[in-house]
Amino acid sequence: MRSAELIELWRGGQRESSHCGDAVICDTKGVIEAWGRPEQIVFPRSSCKMIQALPLIESGAADAAGLTDRQLALACASHSGARIHVDAVDQWLRGLGMGESDLRCGCHMPRDADENRRLTCGDESPCQLHNNCSGKHAGFLTLNRHLGGGTEYVDPDHPVQQAVKAAFEEVTAETSPGYGIDGCSAPNWSCSLAGLGRAMAGFADPPDDTRGRAMRRLVDAMRAHPEMVAGEGRACTILMRAMGGRVAAKTGAEAVFVAILPDQGLGVALKVTDGATRAAEAAITALLVHLGVLPENDPAVGRFLTDPIRNWRGMVTGDMRTAPGFPA
Amino acid sequence: MRSAELIELWRGGQRESSHCGDAVICDTKGVIEAWGRPEQIVFPRSSCKMIQALPLIESGAADAAGLTDRQLALACASHSGARIHVDAVDQWLRGLGMGESDLRCGCHMPRDADENRRLTCGDESPCQLHNNCSGKHAGFLTLNRHLGGGTEYVDPDHPVQQAVKAAFEEVTAETSPGYGIDGCSAPNWSCSLAGLGRAMAGFADPPDDTRGRAMRRLVDAMRAHPEMVAGEGRACTILMRAMGGRVAAKTGAEAVFVAILPDQGLGVALKVTDGATRAAEAAITALLVHLGVLPENDPAVGRFLTDPIRNWRGMVTGDMRTAPGFPA
Repeated sequence: MRSAELIELWRGGQRESSHCGDAVICDTKGVIEAWGRPEQIVFPRSSCKMIQALPLIESGAADAAGLTDRQLALACASHSGARIHVDAVDQWLRGLGMGESDLRCGCHMPRDADENRRLTCGDESPCQLHNNCSGKHAGFLTLNRHLGGGTEYVDPDHPVQQAVKAAFEEVTAETSPGYGIDGCSAPNWSCSLAGLGRAMAGFADPPDDTRGRAMRRLVDAMRAHPEMVAGEGRACTILMRAMGGRVAAKTGAEAVFVAILPDQGLGVALKVTDGATRAAEAAITALLVHLGVLPENDPAVGRFLTDPIRNWRGMVTGDMRTAPGFPA
Repeated sequence: MRSAELIELWRGGQRESSHCGDAVICDTKGVIEAWGRPEQIVFPRSSCKMIQALPLIESGAADAAGLTDRQLALACASHSGARIHVDAVDQWLRGLGMGESDLRCGCHMPRDADENRRLTCGDESPCQLHNNCSGKHAGFLTLNRHLGGGTEYVDPDHPVQQAVKAAFEEVTAETSPGYGIDGCSAPNWSCSLAGLGRAMAGFADPPDDTRGRAMRRLVDAMRAHPEMVAGEGRACTILMRAMGGRVAAKTGAEAVFVAILPDQGLGVALKVTDGATRAAEAAITALLVHLGVLPENDPAVGRFLTDPIRNWRGMVTGDMRTAPGFPA
């Protein structure tokens, strides 16, 4: 099997660029629709943060720390480092009697334009709270306090990461071929795209047990707080808002995107082979329209897929479109 | 024929992402080495600015305006909008008795970090001088004053663009299938990748006539002023410096890259199918090493291809590498 053509960019009546990838729609039993290679091994990257957050709830650590849904949404987030995100993580860590220096995610400039400008113009450096994964790491620290592990909670052998690995292999129903180190220094376990899709279907249609209740709680938290999962202007936030909180959507680096559709009991997972964010956003948009959960005429569909592409003087220069056969 | 695998990204011992594309090495007679589809039709975008500048010289407009090599390099540039670029274009336009408002390229924030910060923190908007194509447009305006055309010099039917089209079709030795509108509003004519490569070979090994002398002058201008062709930290500038001015290199949007090798009489052209800059930069680096003009141990090779990829805490997370069979 080969990857499938997913997204094309046209200019002057000619196809200028195109993006291949793999995509699956799953229920809890497995793949029900696929493009490309469902068996393709992928690093889910940040798209699996809701999986990484399962031990936080299942261990009782979240309740012991009195975490709110807003904090659980942040544990599943790749946030923009806006003040609402940075302040919320700061407050969370203080609530644990900890601080920024306990994080192991590293520092990077925030995507959020206002906060970026504040740092740039104040000649200030970003701190670890600005890291898009700082909410996930606050979750790791919360779990770690509960488990009584050592300070280096991102080590692959650390009890926190071993708990994450166990949850990951259980919900994907696969033995992971291995891990890579993520941008935030945590191990990221790989799986097949079908395994990731099945895991998302599990979140969409969870069993009535400890795991299932944890899944439901995380999905509800993400859907209730789309602004915490990414940020203003970001695809996850915009798409979740456009679907009125019915669907949870999460992106990951290198063009992974997943969606959880509780009303349908379906999970979606896709990876664009070349890692292009623009194509992952366009492809998940197309699949959500295909599944009938995102109205075709919603401005979000225009923004990520169908609006004409304009240049610096506002002239239409081309368009983005789905490739023939994707999704229908 | 299919596109070829060019560049891969690995993490944790697994291939995470990969980039396909097409690439050719040509002499003036045609393709001498190819990967993927030499016949693939591409928009050269900014990679063909030295072609677009030919009529500026051949018409006598450049000499009539007393243009320097530094200005000719800027006519072939996608510059960073640093002060050296903005001031040079400003001065050029004043020399013509014109100004920023005569440009038709539109405004965008400059890539240059210092100038970007100055505008951001001063709450100032960028002007058309900041547009990465403003040097090319200053060249168009210089040609236009010589030709006596109307003010809307980016119209495809305007004498300036008709002169550009004629030069483009002559040096590619092809009838263009058509044009697209570029980011800077000028028409951008398409051609086969082989045609673009042959054109670059023409610049590398020019005939002893008006066209050939114009070609030589532009290549010499680019090689003498790499800082004007792009800017600090940018691939074209870094690669040209690394090769000690022996080679001219120019990128274009959507992952086109060309190189002109006068010592070898060779031209190189490549386009990454998905439009990823990281892959175009890595692929041209690999081809320049393959051709023996860029030492394998040069820091530029590390920067664009072989250095390990590190995360926010400096941990090695993976690497970029050429795909099997590319370039050798």
